[in-house]
Amino acid sequence: MTAEIIIIGDEILIGQVVDTNSADIARELDRIGISVNQILAIQDEKSDILRALKDAATRADVVVMSGGLGPTKDDVTKYTLCQFFDDIVVNNEEVLKHVEELFKKIKNTPLSDLNREQALVPSKATVLFNKYGTAPGLWMEQDKTVFIAVPGVPFEMKMMMEQQIIPKLKREFNRPFIYHKTLRTFGLGESALAERLEEWENNLPEKIKLAYLPNLGSVRLRLSGKGENEKELKEGIEKELTKLYPLIEDILSDNINEDDDITVTLNKLLISKKQFLSSAESCTGGEVAAQFTINPGASSCFKGGLVTYATHSKEELLKVPKKIIEEHSVVSGEVAEAMASNARDLFKSNYAISTTGNAGPKKGESDEEVGTVFIGIATPEKVFSKKYKFGKSREQVVKKTVNKAFELLLRELIKK
Amino acid sequence: MTAEIIIIGDEILIGQVVDTNSADIARELDRIGISVNQILAIQDEKSDILRALKDAATRADVVVMSGGLGPTKDDVTKYTLCQFFDDIVVNNEEVLKHVEELFKKIKNTPLSDLNREQALVPSKATVLFNKYGTAPGLWMEQDKTVFIAVPGVPFEMKMMMEQQIIPKLKREFNRPFIYHKTLRTFGLGESALAERLEEWENNLPEKIKLAYLPNLGSVRLRLSGKGENEKELKEGIEKELTKLYPLIEDILSDNINEDDDITVTLNKLLISKKQFLSSAESCTGGEVAAQFTINPGASSCFKGGLVTYATHSKEELLKVPKKIIEEHSVVSGEVAEAMASNARDLFKSNYAISTTGNAGPKKGESDEEVGTVFIGIATPEKVFSKKYKFGKSREQVVKKTVNKAFELLLRELIKK
Repeated sequence: MTAEIIIIGDEILIGQVVDTNSADIARELDRIGISVNQILAIQDEKSDILRALKDAATRADVVVMSGGLGPTKDDVTKYTLCQFFDDIVVNNEEVLKHVEELFKKIKNTPLSDLNREQALVPSKATVLFNKYGTAPGLWMEQDKTVFIAVPGVPFEMKMMMEQQIIPKLKREFNRPFIYHKTLRTFGLGESALAERLEEWENNLPEKIKLAYLPNLGSVRLRLSGKGENEKELKEGIEKELTKLYPLIEDILSDNINEDDDITVTLNKLLISKKQFLSSAESCTGGEVAAQFTINPGASSCFKGGLVTYATHSKEELLKVPKKIIEEHSVVSGEVAEAMASNARDLFKSNYAISTTGNAGPKKGESDEEVGTVFIGIATPEKVFSKKYKFGKSREQVVKKTVNKAFELLLRELIKK
Repeated sequence: MTAEIIIIGDEILIGQVVDTNSADIARELDRIGISVNQILAIQDEKSDILRALKDAATRADVVVMSGGLGPTKDDVTKYTLCQFFDDIVVNNEEVLKHVEELFKKIKNTPLSDLNREQALVPSKATVLFNKYGTAPGLWMEQDKTVFIAVPGVPFEMKMMMEQQIIPKLKREFNRPFIYHKTLRTFGLGESALAERLEEWENNLPEKIKLAYLPNLGSVRLRLSGKGENEKELKEGIEKELTKLYPLIEDILSDNINEDDDITVTLNKLLISKKQFLSSAESCTGGEVAAQFTINPGASSCFKGGLVTYATHSKEELLKVPKKIIEEHSVVSGEVAEAMASNARDLFKSNYAISTTGNAGPKKGESDEEVGTVFIGIATPEKVFSKKYKFGKSREQVVKKTVNKAFELLLRELIKK
């Protein structure tokens, strides 16, 4: 079974908004064995949408469209579907009632004609009820292709996919089995890794594909297989893994849950060891804490963090001795180590991460060149720091510093 | 002039990676008057890429492809371009020298055959030199359509677009003039806003389009025009703006630089008023500080922040009286206000933002239901807090809290 995704919205095509919906939709479909062959983003134009629908119908079993279902003039998805299916819109009482209630309860504003129009749906469509907004989703079928329209608001789309569309697809269609296994490696670039794995990769069975997913200092290896026989497929991949492990033993990060984001892995490890983390950040400005705490488990393994942007707050709040700052400058290994160990003590945590550096674009209160960063790690037994040069882009420096800090912490945690 | 973007990579189609490249490329092209009509993401498969190239050639003046230029087996863009252009690869000495130097200087590993292959480029291509990586970009022309291939690594792509591709496109092509003006509004939903503006919108001249860009509590209105005559177009849009302003006066956020992200606007305002901000965060876990400090100006207007995740760190580090927490619970307006005013004092700033809430999925140490958040704002004259309910998704709660906190601060700053 194959799918195509059509994203509708001018804001995507002028680059004002990054489309995250297609990745979310693709991930959900992929998980149930429906391969997404293409993602297309087009304007809110009837003619463009019609062309995309016609093209997709010749190739895909499932077409998911996102966007253009709102109440304003530039929302044309519903009426374009009517044209494509030679259909008319009819009023849906259930949707109307829901829209009325939503406006009464949450928005506390009277219902307008534009809002009332949200209850008009193509007569041939199965309505996908939208608990969280006014635009209903639509499910329509033609010549064995299913066309599904979901709202462009990410949260409404996600809930509709999870709660209605995925279960309905699973109920109504036979799908092949898809199995992914992802391993995270550190310290070797994509090409060096590819070279090391060349012979093994050349001998992979046809049903199993390997992908390299490089991302700032780490390369994830994704093995994926697709087939009818779940057992055979899983065994095939496990067999390849036993050949792969010895080849990458020295650069493999962990084998806990390699599909997880590194912060999820850290969360799980800390909780399982009943340990707590804290942070003291300068150049990363809170990004270490923010990325770490987005995981629901964070309250069981994160005590808190300090963002000491101004030098005096390093001294006064984090109690980094003025003397160390004066002797070694604020961007130094000594300061990073003092920050990490003081954060660990202040927050009463077991581990601490610290960052200090010049993220640029201008040099700060230190002589180190832009892009120089020191990361400090405090563990129950020791404190150390490492120096890095992460280039001249501010965003890149922050990203790379955060990733590297998590990697350093992970290496400490898996030692035990 | 129209453009299409082709993103190549299996990782996009299984939803493992969110494609940010297409938005970056689209934004850059749009700025110089080249409209992007579609963005297509496809697999690393020669046949798919060939089909996409053929389709795009029938419609677009410029086709930008991103991804698939790396050294591994799944990188097929270069060889597909050869097939499409009936071309062969030749060794490029300059690229080879650069790859050799890069490996010597930065990677400190010997050059492999795979890396050496990076210097092979289609003979008909103009090479776009990649200072920051090993994969060169390619510029090829056929029947008046320009095909440009850039690396998939976001930073390398961005640098190549900014430094080489955009200047070259500007030099070699006449482009129409594009003018955007974006206004940020708060407090009115998309449909209510559309209703209010209906009459004005219906009378907009044909060359000027209006788009509604809703995003968590704010709707941005984007007016855009395209034409040959820059002066006429600008005057046309300015004329429409003078009609629009009175209609939205009460909900307009500011008129500083409406295309800016709200944190950029805040940065500029604080710096111009010589004021400093600090933060004390619980449920947002550092995201307020992180989003604020990603802007280069932050060191001139941000003192620092505390992430007090554990209750005892609110008491000990932020000096929130235990009595207030016991009486009102940790998720309360009283605690939010104490956090904001203490952060302002501790960091010696003029303004402070605080957040405390239950981001979920489980209830924390408070009786308030999941999604309940209090935001505190301290200004030089006063402290206040507001209560919100932001739903059940942890990520949404964090996002909405951060956005709302910045909005509250902005409203205080523009009062003066």
